[in-house]
Amino acid sequence: VKTPNFNALADLSTPALVIDEDALLRNIDRMAAEARGAGLCLRPHAKTHKCKEIALLQLRAGAVGIACATIAEAEAFSGAGIGGILVTSPMMGSDKFARVAKLNREGGVTVVVDHVVQIEGLLAHLQPDDPPLAVAVDVDIGQNRTGVTSIAHALELARASSDSPRLSFAGLQGFAGHVQHIIDFQERKAAAANAAEKLRKVAGALTSAGQPPRLISGSGTGAYGFDATGPYNELQVGSYVFMDADYARIVDEKGNALPYAPSLFVLATVVSINRPGEVTVDAGTKALATNGPTPFNFFGAPAGAAYRFAGDEHGIITFPVAQQGPTLGARLLIGATHCDPTVNLHARYHVFSGGKIGRWNVLARYEN
Amino acid sequence: VKTPNFNALADLSTPALVIDEDALLRNIDRMAAEARGAGLCLRPHAKTHKCKEIALLQLRAGAVGIACATIAEAEAFSGAGIGGILVTSPMMGSDKFARVAKLNREGGVTVVVDHVVQIEGLLAHLQPDDPPLAVAVDVDIGQNRTGVTSIAHALELARASSDSPRLSFAGLQGFAGHVQHIIDFQERKAAAANAAEKLRKVAGALTSAGQPPRLISGSGTGAYGFDATGPYNELQVGSYVFMDADYARIVDEKGNALPYAPSLFVLATVVSINRPGEVTVDAGTKALATNGPTPFNFFGAPAGAAYRFAGDEHGIITFPVAQQGPTLGARLLIGATHCDPTVNLHARYHVFSGGKIGRWNVLARYEN
Repeated sequence: VKTPNFNALADLSTPALVIDEDALLRNIDRMAAEARGAGLCLRPHAKTHKCKEIALLQLRAGAVGIACATIAEAEAFSGAGIGGILVTSPMMGSDKFARVAKLNREGGVTVVVDHVVQIEGLLAHLQPDDPPLAVAVDVDIGQNRTGVTSIAHALELARASSDSPRLSFAGLQGFAGHVQHIIDFQERKAAAANAAEKLRKVAGALTSAGQPPRLISGSGTGAYGFDATGPYNELQVGSYVFMDADYARIVDEKGNALPYAPSLFVLATVVSINRPGEVTVDAGTKALATNGPTPFNFFGAPAGAAYRFAGDEHGIITFPVAQQGPTLGARLLIGATHCDPTVNLHARYHVFSGGKIGRWNVLARYEN
Repeated sequence: VKTPNFNALADLSTPALVIDEDALLRNIDRMAAEARGAGLCLRPHAKTHKCKEIALLQLRAGAVGIACATIAEAEAFSGAGIGGILVTSPMMGSDKFARVAKLNREGGVTVVVDHVVQIEGLLAHLQPDDPPLAVAVDVDIGQNRTGVTSIAHALELARASSDSPRLSFAGLQGFAGHVQHIIDFQERKAAAANAAEKLRKVAGALTSAGQPPRLISGSGTGAYGFDATGPYNELQVGSYVFMDADYARIVDEKGNALPYAPSLFVLATVVSINRPGEVTVDAGTKALATNGPTPFNFFGAPAGAAYRFAGDEHGIITFPVAQQGPTLGARLLIGATHCDPTVNLHARYHVFSGGKIGRWNVLARYEN
């Protein structure tokens, strides 16, 4: 990563969420090329960025649409004119079913289900003149979070979707969230193969039963390299746009890191310098997600610097006492280590490329 | 806590941030009575709730104003008509100084400093016709985060404030953040006494030097009972309105818990029930702060239930297999265990009292 132009960032009030646009664009292009090379569709997960501008860049690079985690995200992206939306979490509640029906009517959407009660709920809110709602069956391929756990259950839901004139059976989703962050290459490869095999069996059984899945969606940034061999025909990768620090530990067979660069930072200001060997900055747990590795990647801090959280609005940067510490008012870029929840803490991105700064909004933070 | 009326919550889209208004009001009244009884002013910390309506309730119960952690919070509360604002974090940056000067001009504000460079920065943005800006000196009484670490430094800043016609020296702030969560009573008492003694020495030295501090602000929910003996003349307590789970472990000399009840919850919906002994709900790390105890306080879950985080949008509730699990679509109230950062994840509170639901906005999430 090149050294950022801090002058361009001088006018920002801190803490501020900052994107290195060049790194972002390289990440987007690289994943698009990987998917093309593997002959797979790309439907990037927009829960990572919650950002219209980034979704549009992904679509321009060849994505067939985006994945969303919530109906609120789907509404926000659809409202921004983005199509090809798949909501990847099963939903419950008449409020949610009504919102799905409305979105299907107005912009189109595909949703996943893992229980017939969800299908019944959706049907209760679809109207006779609505376009058929595309429904994919969510399959639990080892993450143990959502999804059907048997072929019989998958077939029941596929048939219920196919049999209703108000629904269309779109296919299958299987997300191996438990695989993505396994560090050891062989172990990760075996876990990915095991998850893929579960999904392949379900897909085969449904095809044999006359319910062939058109869509087989899944995978993630840590395992997409294995998943090109199927049964997936599209990738739901998300984190590659920003690159979580955790993924930096993941290497391929030859020990090479994934070909994506960190592009997401939090700009902080040094606000207190009264103690030797450390300074206090104005970015704490309300600016940087705490459920990832402790931030370790800095611009503007001395060599050997380390960060620790010091409350909602504060962090402490320690450095070897022999080093000259940052001055009062100095600005640091702190690499975000868990990107999705860090983004969710901010209303806006500040996007820098050379000396220019752009502003992009973060959509669909919880509002309800 | 009484069992909530789930019917009143049926129309909310989940995850939703929910306040038990009766518990909130009892907490507010109790702390107001404690401060009155101790002869101390109460300036509750609004970083906890970021909510105009709650601040107004605190003022109505007798608070002299509110404390804010950021200038953005101060701007939002001042814009909502609330006065008596103290910003408790030293700031750096001409953008921040300009915002302080503007707020001082328009609604009035007191800020803290811990370095003469901050005073110089503020002076550069104050205009001749502005009312004097009230400046308090932040003293490090053992938290090692911000504040001056010597009497000489405190005196330098007090004099610099007193000597400038554009500033007024308001007094001292000392926040013993390191004391509030110490579980053992005697240990907590000793740590609070140690911190208070540091502040008392600074206050005494400044008085002797002709710079008597009018304001001596500090303390928190875990230690306010000790701090009534001074040198504090006002309490900055914040968490008591919602009661972090961690504070439930804190007891007085007789083993009694603090007299405040949990009032903050996240309403979640069961979205997947395909695995024995557990269900998946739609509240994860984007709905509940992860840097506190794991949520353990539920309404709507079987006896013996436990929660674990399962991603940004999901949590898993496990329960004894012999128990009947929650049904698909069932709603649970999950007690927030670290309230300040949980509030910061949501745009809105849903406030229930009996069968009625009100909506209050969360202000000043990072926007910059």
